Parts: sequence; structure tokens; C-alpha cells
Amino acid sequence: MAGKKRAGGRGATGRLVGRGRARARLGVALGDRSYDIELGHDWLETIGRRAAKRLAADRLALVTVPTVARRYAPMLTRGLEAGGARVHRIVVPDGDATKNLSQLAELYDAFLRHGLDRSSAVVTLGGGVVGDLGGFAAATFLRGIPFVQVPTTILAMTDASIGGKTGVNLEQGKNLVGAFHQPRGVYIDIATLRSLPRRERAAGTAELIKHAAIWDEVFFTWLEPRIEAFLDLDPRVVVPALERSCAIKADVVARDEREGGLRRLLNFGHTLAHAIEKHAGYRDILHGEAVAIGMVFAAERSESLGFSPAGTASRLIALLERVGLPTSFPNRPRSAYLSAIAVDKKKQGGKIHFVVLEGIGAAKTVALAPGDILPKSWRA
Amino acid sequence: MAGKKRAGGRGATGRLVGRGRARARLGVALGDRSYDIELGHDWLETIGRRAAKRLAADRLALVTVPTVARRYAPMLTRGLEAGGARVHRIVVPDGDATKNLSQLAELYDAFLRHGLDRSSAVVTLGGGVVGDLGGFAAATFLRGIPFVQVPTTILAMTDASIGGKTGVNLEQGKNLVGAFHQPRGVYIDIATLRSLPRRERAAGTAELIKHAAIWDEVFFTWLEPRIEAFLDLDPRVVVPALERSCAIKADVVARDEREGGLRRLLNFGHTLAHAIEKHAGYRDILHGEAVAIGMVFAAERSESLGFSPAGTASRLIALLERVGLPTSFPNRPRSAYLSAIAVDKKKQGGKIHFVVLEGIGAAKTVALAPGDILPKSWRA
Repeated sequence: MAGKKRAGGRGATGRLVGRGRARARLGVALGDRSYDIELGHDWLETIGRRAAKRLAADRLALVTVPTVARRYAPMLTRGLEAGGARVHRIVVPDGDATKNLSQLAELYDAFLRHGLDRSSAVVTLGGGVVGDLGGFAAATFLRGIPFVQVPTTILAMTDASIGGKTGVNLEQGKNLVGAFHQPRGVYIDIATLRSLPRRERAAGTAELIKHAAIWDEVFFTWLEPRIEAFLDLDPRVVVPALERSCAIKADVVARDEREGGLRRLLNFGHTLAHAIEKHAGYRDILHGEAVAIGMVFAAERSESLGFSPAGTASRLIALLERVGLPTSFPNRPRSAYLSAIAVDKKKQGGKIHFVVLEGIGAAKTVALAPGDILPKSWRA
Repeated sequence: MAGKKRAGGRGATGRLVGRGRARARLGVALGDRSYDIELGHDWLETIGRRAAKRLAADRLALVTVPTVARRYAPMLTRGLEAGGARVHRIVVPDGDATKNLSQLAELYDAFLRHGLDRSSAVVTLGGGVVGDLGGFAAATFLRGIPFVQVPTTILAMTDASIGGKTGVNLEQGKNLVGAFHQPRGVYIDIATLRSLPRRERAAGTAELIKHAAIWDEVFFTWLEPRIEAFLDLDPRVVVPALERSCAIKADVVARDEREGGLRRLLNFGHTLAHAIEKHAGYRDILHGEAVAIGMVFAAERSESLGFSPAGTASRLIALLERVGLPTSFPNRPRSAYLSAIAVDKKKQGGKIHFVVLEGIGAAKTVALAPGDILPKSWRA
């Protein structure tokens, strides 16, 4: 499937019209691992009741982080308990450094201390870190117990909570250990975004724009005049935008659950993003910010390699800049980026599956040597 | 499916006749995760070539233990290299204590140090510990890379290498963390059993007898006059016996890959075996020895509860005793065993899925409270 041109918006089921719908639901079609993503507004307690019923577990571990726990865990817990579950809250430290093997071991210990068994389940409440770590613990505890995700960041809502990727980092790199473990459901309350700092909101918006850029020109065009309203969290824009973004990711994942080919399109911007993050030691720069820079690089490279018409990159750059995202590289020598992308785990046989745009709303994968991705003439 | 009576031998495809066939092959039918088990004699180099071709990986981690590495790794490696792979030998300490999270982390480090990526694969050479640990590392490294098993113990050949169960122990108990990850192939060289101490050979034979006892009276009856020849490793008995034993396990697994019900029959004898092992601190007693005692307990309990005709238990006991396996309990108070089986991870809703015999070659699962499994009158 890799390398095939995608018609804009084909298969995406999210609707962009409607006057501020308060609720939305879309399915991720994965055979007997299919599940629904449900979006709503100020409905954490209802989410709890639904999640508890969906999991039908007598005992739940609610894995979350301190800031989110304070604000949202009580309401969600009330719902989970009303749904018939006994809830054990497990709070892990915030930040990507939490996604490691020793934190995972602590989660297993907590699961056992709270008496979780094969009839128990996990609920993750928070951003991508909590979803990845808690999801991987669920994937491997007693060889796998069910879980649901309640994402509270834009990034987790539109990206991390769809596709079943769970895992932890090693010192040598991010997401080097993990499993595919599909959640039984994803429940989104967009009201939880209010407490998200503006900078993180912007970073999360990068992945939303990515989905539009690789898959759906209609969505991209719809988003352009509404991006400020989105960042201001106007529900009439946020609900349909998240719904469409989730639908795109769900569509890609449903067609390619185990990342054979098509799913690689979601790596648009990520080859260089990973290199940037690595050099920043995963500090000082947010993932979405690195992705924004990586997308600009990939879009410009798509034009110079002749894959996309002139003007594609500048249209993408303009939107990213209005979000307040960085678009130019941290100043490092080419050799530093080159060595970082050369160890990228997507590398196969010396070549890298590099995602290029064929225009706004269409992308494909091309196999390139690191030196062809970053030509000698390139400067940060 | 649990609780259904099984007709003896139904579905088992291994053949028990033939004059010392040197090779055998049987399939494990799991849809797109199907694979073959191949048995042979003095053919490690051929195994290597076949495994390398099956995996089609340019780089392989050969995970093994010191004793096995010395004897068999050079020959297997020669074959793997002849099959086109670059082989990195990773030797982990022997013994069940090796199956832990810190050893797992060391495996990930070794994989990265040797440059393994998504196009690489793992070969495990050794007993169940190596298969479980190496298999779980393969299941989770980069969210899963392929692996094959080359088991060198009877237990690993007939039990651990079929079914895709991989994992590690936690301090709190065995196999509390893991994943289902089917191998791409299982390659058995029965010549590797020659270096197995007599006591371990006997312990492994316990699981072979278990397969006959729960599933296949024809096999049990065939085995009775041949058990000494089996223990002496007469290939004319070992090849067909292992083939039949593998076929039974493969048949059960194919019908119930994720352990919904039928697969629980394989836990025959294990409820008490786990309790015995726990009290022994997983030392001094081999798993198969504990299973032998547990099977005797379960068979006698099956009779006293009226599930099987009189004489069933004594026939099983006679065979186990000829193997030299223990059949009576280490002397501990009932309360000690009771608390150990009460935390058994197969417990659901206060009851335990306890496997009883309905006669030699037929078993079913019954849900019993711990106090009904070990009645007040019981003494070790």
C-alpha cells in the first residue's frame, strides 16, 4: 500500500458541518478488536459510567498524572464507581521520562498490590505518556487485560489514543519497547483541554494539521479560516475538527493495523522530528513542535524532489505559523541530523521510508538513503 | 468450550506407528499466525538453515544459556549463517530466576548493541526459560519482531514452545507479565535431550503424560509399555511420543488461542503445582515434579468428587512412579496450600477453574471454591 497516492479525504468519516454538535462517535474497524471513539463536552462522569460498563471489570486501575488527577480524576472515578467498578487510582510522575521500564515495574507492583487479576482492567487518564505506559502495562500484565483511554491532550486525542500502539522508551531511544494493544474504547471530553497550556495546545495541533496535510484537503481548507477558533477551544470548531482528525487516523489504522505500509504516512514529518528531539535530549522542545519543523522540512523536500507542486510547502508553513509553531531548525551541523536519522528504527536495508507530500491532502512513502533526505547542500 | 467432555485422541494428528521415523512435521493452525513444528534427530545445522530462511532476517539474536551454548550453539550458528543471517549470540544465566524484568532489560540492551532493527529476528535455543524470556523480548522489542524456538528440553519441546505464551516472573509470582507472541517455527532436535540430566528428563515427561491423561487414552495406553524406552531416549519411541504430545497441545491451542476455555485443560495438575512451587520458593522442586504431585491430587479429587471412575488415579500414579516422579505432597499444613491457591491468577470471582479427569484421556474444568478443592479433611 505504501507509495500509493491518496485521494483527499477518501474514507474519512468525520463530518465538518453542523452547528456545534455536543457529541460525536466514530468507529475504529479492526475486526474483533474494533472499538468506538466518543467525543463530548463536560461529560466525564458519563464517560466513567460508560467505560465501566464497556470494560465490565469488577476492579479498575485508573492510571493518571498529578495535575490531571487533581482536576479530573474525582469526577471520572464517580462515574466509574457508578458503573459498578472498584477504582484504584495510580498516579505516575508527569513527563516523557516517566515512560520507562522502572516505572512500568512500579505499575505492575501497584496492580498486584490492589489485587488486579484477569477480570480487572485499566483506565488511562491523561496525555500520550499515560496512555502509552498504562496501555503497555495493560498489554503485558497477566499477558494482557483490557483497557480504555480517556485522553486529555490534543495529541493524545487525535494521535496516541488511536492505533493500539503502547510502549516505553529506553535510554537509547523512544518507543523501543512496546506492544500493539487496542483499547476497548476511547472517551474524549474536550473540556479537559481548557487546562492545557497554550504552548501544548499548539503542539498538539501540529498532529491535527498533519492528518489534514497527508490525507484530506477538504479538512485542511476548512481548518485554515478556523485555526484561531480551534486554539481558543470553540466547541463548534473543536468537536468536528477532532472528530475528523480521529477519523483520518482511525481510517489509516483500520486499513493497516500492524504498520505494514499505509500507516507509515502518519510518520510525515517524523524522520527529522525524531532527530531534533534526540539532539534536544527530549527536553526544551515538545513533540508537536519537532513535528512541525519536520513537516516543513519534508514539505520543502517534497517540492525540491519534484513530488509536489510549488506552493504546497508555503501553504503548510503559513498555517503552522498561525498556530505559533516553530518552522525552522535548531542550529546544528548536518552531520548531527544525519547520524540521528540513520539510526531511526524505521530504517530498513540502509534506506528510510520517508514520507513526501504530493500536494495538500495527499502523501506517499519513498525509500531514500539518509544522504538523499539530507543532501550535502542542506543547512539547518 | 470449558467443561465439555473430550473424546480420547480426537483431533490429535501425531502418528504413533512407524519404524523409528527420523523426521516429523506438524502444523499449528492459527490463521495468519500458523506455523510448523519440525522434529528430527542430529540435524541442528539443517535446523539453522531452515530457521534462517523462514525468518528471512539479515540479523539474528541467538538467545541461549551457557551449558546449551557450549554444546549446540556452534552447530546451529553454522546453519543460521549458511542460511544467510548474521548471528549475535546472547548468553543469559541458566535457571528460572533469569526470567525477570532486569534480565529482559539487558536483552533489549544487547539487541540494540548488536544493531537489531525491525528487519531482525530472534532465535531461542534452550529450555522454557530461554523461550519465555527471549520470546517476550521478541514480542516487545520495537513492538514485536519475529522469532523461532529451538527447544532443548522435553518440557520446552512439548509445552513451552507451543501456544505463543511468552513472559517473565515478578517477585510476587511466576509469569505475571507477558504476551502472546507466536513463533514463526519450532525446530526440535531430540539429540539435544542426551545432555539433559535424568531428573529433568523425568520432570519433562510429566507434561507429556499430562497431555495423554487429559486428551488421548490411545496415547496413554501406547505410552505405558514404552515409558522406560522413552526415558532412555530411544528415537523410535521419542519421535512419535513428542510428535503426539506436540500435536495434542497444538490442537488445544489452535482451538483456543487466547485461553478462553478449552486451553484451561492444560492446567491439569497446575493449581496445586503452583502452590507447591511457591512454598518451595521455586527451588528444590522442578516444575514437572510439582505437576506430577498436582496431577495425582487432581486425579484423586476427580474420583472422590465422582467425576471419574475408580482406578483412574491409580493408573496415572503407576505411570508417574515408573518415571521416578514424586506423587505425594511436601508436608505442609492445609492452610499454607489453601492461601497459595487462593491467590492463583486463574481465580475469577472467588472460584478457581479446577481441571478434573473424567477418566484417562478426558478432562473438564469445574469452578470450585478453594475450600472445595482442598476440603477440611485433607492432609498433605
